[in-house]
Amino acid sequence: MLESTVAAIRPLDETAMAAARELQGRLTKPAGSLGALEPLSVRLAGLAGACPPPLPEPAAVAIFAGDHGVHAQGVTPWPQEVTAQMIGNFLAGGAVVNAFARQAGASVTVVDVGVATPLPIDPAADSSRSQRGVRPAFIRSGAAPSGAEAELWPPAELELSPGTDPAGPRLVAASVRPGTRDMTVTAALTRDEARAAVETGIRIAGELVDAGAGILLTGDMGIGNTTPAAALVASFTGADPAEVTGRGTGVDDGTYARKVDVVRAALDRHAPDPADPLGVLAAVGGLEHAALAGLILGAAARRVPVLLDGVIAVSAALAAAAFAPDAVGAMVAGHRSAEPGATAALRQLGLDPLIDLGLRLGEGTGALLALPVVTGAVRVLHEVATFDSAGVAEK
Amino acid sequence: MLESTVAAIRPLDETAMAAARELQGRLTKPAGSLGALEPLSVRLAGLAGACPPPLPEPAAVAIFAGDHGVHAQGVTPWPQEVTAQMIGNFLAGGAVVNAFARQAGASVTVVDVGVATPLPIDPAADSSRSQRGVRPAFIRSGAAPSGAEAELWPPAELELSPGTDPAGPRLVAASVRPGTRDMTVTAALTRDEARAAVETGIRIAGELVDAGAGILLTGDMGIGNTTPAAALVASFTGADPAEVTGRGTGVDDGTYARKVDVVRAALDRHAPDPADPLGVLAAVGGLEHAALAGLILGAAARRVPVLLDGVIAVSAALAAAAFAPDAVGAMVAGHRSAEPGATAALRQLGLDPLIDLGLRLGEGTGALLALPVVTGAVRVLHEVATFDSAGVAEK
Repeated sequence: MLESTVAAIRPLDETAMAAARELQGRLTKPAGSLGALEPLSVRLAGLAGACPPPLPEPAAVAIFAGDHGVHAQGVTPWPQEVTAQMIGNFLAGGAVVNAFARQAGASVTVVDVGVATPLPIDPAADSSRSQRGVRPAFIRSGAAPSGAEAELWPPAELELSPGTDPAGPRLVAASVRPGTRDMTVTAALTRDEARAAVETGIRIAGELVDAGAGILLTGDMGIGNTTPAAALVASFTGADPAEVTGRGTGVDDGTYARKVDVVRAALDRHAPDPADPLGVLAAVGGLEHAALAGLILGAAARRVPVLLDGVIAVSAALAAAAFAPDAVGAMVAGHRSAEPGATAALRQLGLDPLIDLGLRLGEGTGALLALPVVTGAVRVLHEVATFDSAGVAEK
Repeated sequence: MLESTVAAIRPLDETAMAAARELQGRLTKPAGSLGALEPLSVRLAGLAGACPPPLPEPAAVAIFAGDHGVHAQGVTPWPQEVTAQMIGNFLAGGAVVNAFARQAGASVTVVDVGVATPLPIDPAADSSRSQRGVRPAFIRSGAAPSGAEAELWPPAELELSPGTDPAGPRLVAASVRPGTRDMTVTAALTRDEARAAVETGIRIAGELVDAGAGILLTGDMGIGNTTPAAALVASFTGADPAEVTGRGTGVDDGTYARKVDVVRAALDRHAPDPADPLGVLAAVGGLEHAALAGLILGAAARRVPVLLDGVIAVSAALAAAAFAPDAVGAMVAGHRSAEPGATAALRQLGLDPLIDLGLRLGEGTGALLALPVVTGAVRVLHEVATFDSAGVAEK
């Protein structure tokens, strides 16, 4: 699936881009006066192969959750159990990502690709929703379903709904393993595990697009996951770990210094080859990072835009670009995370973020705040009058 | 009305701000991880005097339109008639501001405070909408209504609706005079004319808030209006005209040099006193700039946030702050205009813009793009679970 997805990713359509540039010049506004929105609209026309491109709606946020063996090295003050606890918060609708998704009219799909501790969820307790005719929130997925899981497969039955969903956020159980191994001791994942996570991301992208999503937004949850993100950014950009490691969700000076040392030790141990993205993800990545790389590749193959959140997303985007350079055409940078690795990754990808407000939360929150800008950029091509049609004189 | 409005503007409520800070610290996210959204939410609590403050909805964009005698000096390549033509475009729903307002669920009210050429509108032709029970789009307003105008007064009858309005954009006829005088030759306005425009803005703010608006957004239309905006910014900040004059909606090198000379000549002629904002607005302002200053004062007096658009809005905001320094508490900077004067004004106001995408269109477009960020900042205080309630461990 990975190889066929990569093979399906093609360059942007130059004809549609030329048509969008020409249309921008005829709309009732001074040429260029919409700043960064104009080239964005042109690129989305190239991705869709149509001018105007479809409005990017409904929107679907996919939050991939995993834990990290490197947590044992003391890279974060947060207990590992918070990953599972926050999944409960996402499913109950109480997190910031839920508030922003409700506002934006986006669905939320939480995918457990490798949480280490038990989820505070009882699938059997969800019967009340089933009785109301609403599909249970707990859905099993995975590369090789069998037994009880098989009855909820193939993907067409998953009914992952884009757009605000009266059933609320969904959980997809697709754990590859209960957290990665400690990358300072051994490879975080085997190549097969990394591939399984990437292919889970590809599959989720396909299911959401099949269900009608017009844009995918990246989300993530994983205590400690800015450490593998920094290692991925250093691996793919060649930057020194000290340049691309940040303070995550709040670490003190001692923890920060330890975090930089941990990233450096992992890179020294594995010497990952940036030309082998699966090898890099296996050596120093996380399950959610690998799955996000897959989501991005899946979106690009289906020619649907993917709106990137923060440093976890852009570190995964570097892996996706290493698999398929043309995947960058489908990426829109939602915001500039406060993490320094995010800026290094965006520079290498050649992407300018739409929002820069010092966010460092993750979950998909920065992507959701940027969504109206993307929609607005496309809406202009659909709805704004031309000088000729509106009877407005040109200069 | 101006003096009573200024007297009604009070500082932010420290008790509500302290409550919002405390609540932010208990929500299920790392402290500070929402970046600029957190202090914004605190400030809006202080403005409302409540924690959480009300969601800033429905939103109402007020576009003040006027023409400029300084157009005769060749400061722009656009013909003056485009101001009136664009009002027709706004009312037909074909401009970028309309597309963004539809997306954001905001109403659009266009206020003619001084357009020089005939509007491409025939009030009598609006009977079809009246017959459908929809109020005509053409509404007369003004400080001293009489005769036929009086029957559409007092303001309570104006029915300016915030939020998306099936009747579409409204036009309020409140022309003070058909464009300003050429500020390089004489004062642009008399003090009485400047006051009439300011008080029109105050009145529109009051009407929109009375109709239920939870936030006001500034919009403007006026061919040549970046020239008086630069003169206002130079007057209030003390900056040299060359530092705060920009290329507006696209001028060539020769026109740009002439524009700087025009601003310098006007300042040399009038030597406006920044401690006398009405005098500054009269000497080198525009009718839409004066009305926007009034809108901002009116919002601040009613303790409703006002989301500023580009350089026209922030030049007016400097005037509002000169009338009432505490009015800054009600201002939210929507975006950083590409015009250099905008950055100088924002610096003096102590405001950081939410969006920075190189927009230079005006109309209210930058404010509308920023609106979801403001709403999201407040929504977090309403909807996000606390660590305690969600059963999530703290670090």
